[in-house]
Amino acid sequence: MSDSKRDSIDLLFNPKSVAIIGASTNPIKGGNRILKNLIEHKFRGNIYPINPKGGDAYGIKFQKSVLDVEEDIDVGIVFVPNRIIPAVIQECIQKGIKGLIIEAAGFEEVGDMGLELRDKIAEITDNFEKIKIVGPNCTGLTRVDPNGNGFYSAFIVQNPVKSGNIAVISQSGMVNGGYLIHLCTTFPQMGFRYVASIGNKMDLNEIDFLEYYINDNGVNVIALYLESFQEPRKFIELCRKVEKLSNKSIILLRGGLTNQGQNASTSHTGAIAENIRLSQALINQSKVIKVDDFFNLFQVSRTHSMMYDSKIKFPRSGNVAFVTVSGGAGTVTADLIHNYGLKLPELSQECYKRLEEIFPTWMPPNKFSLVDLWPAIENAKVDSDGIHRIALDALLKDENIEGLMISIFFTEDFPFSIDIIEEFHQKYRKPIFCWLFGENECISEVSHRLTKNKIPSFYSLDAMVKNFSSIVRKEL
Amino acid sequence: MSDSKRDSIDLLFNPKSVAIIGASTNPIKGGNRILKNLIEHKFRGNIYPINPKGGDAYGIKFQKSVLDVEEDIDVGIVFVPNRIIPAVIQECIQKGIKGLIIEAAGFEEVGDMGLELRDKIAEITDNFEKIKIVGPNCTGLTRVDPNGNGFYSAFIVQNPVKSGNIAVISQSGMVNGGYLIHLCTTFPQMGFRYVASIGNKMDLNEIDFLEYYINDNGVNVIALYLESFQEPRKFIELCRKVEKLSNKSIILLRGGLTNQGQNASTSHTGAIAENIRLSQALINQSKVIKVDDFFNLFQVSRTHSMMYDSKIKFPRSGNVAFVTVSGGAGTVTADLIHNYGLKLPELSQECYKRLEEIFPTWMPPNKFSLVDLWPAIENAKVDSDGIHRIALDALLKDENIEGLMISIFFTEDFPFSIDIIEEFHQKYRKPIFCWLFGENECISEVSHRLTKNKIPSFYSLDAMVKNFSSIVRKEL
Repeated sequence: MSDSKRDSIDLLFNPKSVAIIGASTNPIKGGNRILKNLIEHKFRGNIYPINPKGGDAYGIKFQKSVLDVEEDIDVGIVFVPNRIIPAVIQECIQKGIKGLIIEAAGFEEVGDMGLELRDKIAEITDNFEKIKIVGPNCTGLTRVDPNGNGFYSAFIVQNPVKSGNIAVISQSGMVNGGYLIHLCTTFPQMGFRYVASIGNKMDLNEIDFLEYYINDNGVNVIALYLESFQEPRKFIELCRKVEKLSNKSIILLRGGLTNQGQNASTSHTGAIAENIRLSQALINQSKVIKVDDFFNLFQVSRTHSMMYDSKIKFPRSGNVAFVTVSGGAGTVTADLIHNYGLKLPELSQECYKRLEEIFPTWMPPNKFSLVDLWPAIENAKVDSDGIHRIALDALLKDENIEGLMISIFFTEDFPFSIDIIEEFHQKYRKPIFCWLFGENECISEVSHRLTKNKIPSFYSLDAMVKNFSSIVRKEL
Repeated sequence: MSDSKRDSIDLLFNPKSVAIIGASTNPIKGGNRILKNLIEHKFRGNIYPINPKGGDAYGIKFQKSVLDVEEDIDVGIVFVPNRIIPAVIQECIQKGIKGLIIEAAGFEEVGDMGLELRDKIAEITDNFEKIKIVGPNCTGLTRVDPNGNGFYSAFIVQNPVKSGNIAVISQSGMVNGGYLIHLCTTFPQMGFRYVASIGNKMDLNEIDFLEYYINDNGVNVIALYLESFQEPRKFIELCRKVEKLSNKSIILLRGGLTNQGQNASTSHTGAIAENIRLSQALINQSKVIKVDDFFNLFQVSRTHSMMYDSKIKFPRSGNVAFVTVSGGAGTVTADLIHNYGLKLPELSQECYKRLEEIFPTWMPPNKFSLVDLWPAIENAKVDSDGIHRIALDALLKDENIEGLMISIFFTEDFPFSIDIIEEFHQKYRKPIFCWLFGENECISEVSHRLTKNKIPSFYSLDAMVKNFSSIVRKEL
């Protein structure tokens, strides 16, 4: 990555001063909400709202033009009709602004008129040499600092975003807007470092942000939503590099991999139709973790985020154990484990011996690492917790088993001792993923508690196994 | 279906009198919980707890043997160690009991000893002529009446089950136990007519219950969890018959479709390894709706249940529309729609014209039924609700469009008028499926309200499209 590009993105995420070009005094307008968001997300630099009509909001006086601002301005957030954007850019260059976040729409995605606009901007900016541009047709950038300060530049009202190790690059503005609200209120423990809504990527693209994130130690999980690949070779190269880094994962949702999706994408980000097979081959070569919708993109990201937070090593072979009290859950999970490329290995002699002791003689345990504890519990001289303690200890001690999945049934009458899970998670430092079922209120609480302890939990076996398969990293 | 088999199952679901053989005075034992469950689920017949030691519980005196009961007994629920079961069965036959629900384990699934036991029982019962058997290794039967009465015979503590149009056949006891608790507390509107946990299906099998459900007008949705097919030809025949019935759907989760899954299944229900390819071919021929885990089994069942409750016709061609405010959601949904075999057809001239009127001239709508309303809302002379009203009306009026999917973004600051969805759902009688995102509390409420109005909603695009694809019924 060139130093100048890195410096540009650095400045765009960490400006000391920002102009909001197209600021509004009307609280229901986007140009007002950008201002409000910067204030409420504790942006610590200077803010200069710009509107030719003047006015003021939140105690800040609007200027008529960036040229009226006496102090230096690092970055401009542009929220004006697309036709006047060339003029705005010219003023910004004149003012010495180094980076622009253009949130207005109406460029490549609207055909010839938009393409003309793009050419004009390329000319004005000397092919983006004079000023760096994020967007257009985006919802801006988000930075969340561990100390609680931040930079949130989207035009939608957003609640506080928690600081964490996830960084996002998205060609859907929703991801830095409505869906971010969804994530922050649904998964209150989920934390972000950056979100970049890159829109039509007229200048800065996914490669630039990807390189920036790879070089940032605060970033562990990189979640991508893309509708086109700007520099395929470079993309593969960067992804393959990350594959060998023990502190980074890349998860990709690629929209437009069908003819229908491509047609949709053209009217969204103006992405030019790509050969679908080539795109698929590219994704396979990149070896990133692929997902198929936004929910999965962030569920898998959350899982990886918890893995890095827990500082537990990622498994490499995919040898797992599944512990359950339901034979049916065992059978279905065994199928899923096979289908997602994981393995249920043979138990070590020691492990098998310890399990055999707790099982009734008429129903010995499996020789492989699928353990239905029901017969053991039914015949138990100790309680269910005691049986679980023995089984989990035996399995996690088995050197051939890299991680454990477990079904947890929890109701008021049948509580499950979560302590055991937490204790062994700490003791053996192997990933433990849980499938929760039982009384809704009880399992919500359990899920919350497990999340705090960096133990991922799920309400579907499919999600549990899929997420576990995503953490197997053969190249580490 | 033979009349005698139908009568047997009828009696097993609707006994006038029940013996609990292996009743216990100890509230933490399964033999006590069966008794408690019968009482609490308002079983209106006579209950005779049986235990050689005598005792009493919940005001009911235990008898030492079924032979000590003076009145007739229709059905026995057996919860005793497997070794004494032959003796128990002999007594039950002597008493004139017509059906047994054997919840004890330790038969086919435990190898030779279990097989011997099975042979002995076949001999005693004259190959199940003298008495009909559900199980062994099951959690019994559930019947839920619209008037609130019912029959719940499992040995786990269960909350009330709501009456509805879903009927279940399961080779996993969990489905009539822990997972039923999960469903009833997580989806309080979800209603059941029957749940049959058939275990090792020593006598009565999935075919018998399937035929019984097909002949019951109160049943619309048949959810199956199977680990083996007892009578493959008959299974295909019944499923193909249901395919042409407008009041029934069959959804199948088949465990043991991989070598690993088969190994697991053998230790669970004693299912003998089947040729996996043959099983898969059989499933394809049956044309049932296939799912891959318990969560999906019941999510799809719930969707179908709501469809029947709403009395809206199932779509036949798979021509759908998707309305969104997010271009990214549009692109991803277009891909999913393709991958799940649905179609986004060309809009009728009238429909296109009406959409064109609300879109800005620089960004006209698509010619096909994927409508990203964001540009229309941004440029609106009316509000977002007004724009949605026009678009939904135009699309639902289009004769070529059989149903609609829509993304609903909802926060306190940006409410969405759910009235519009409800109004058009009623007016056009076409299925409307919703993807919800936004502030967690808001969308939980929206989901609850939509469910009451029989409008399915989802938190993932993948789930929304998958569920919609499941309701397309080409044979109707």
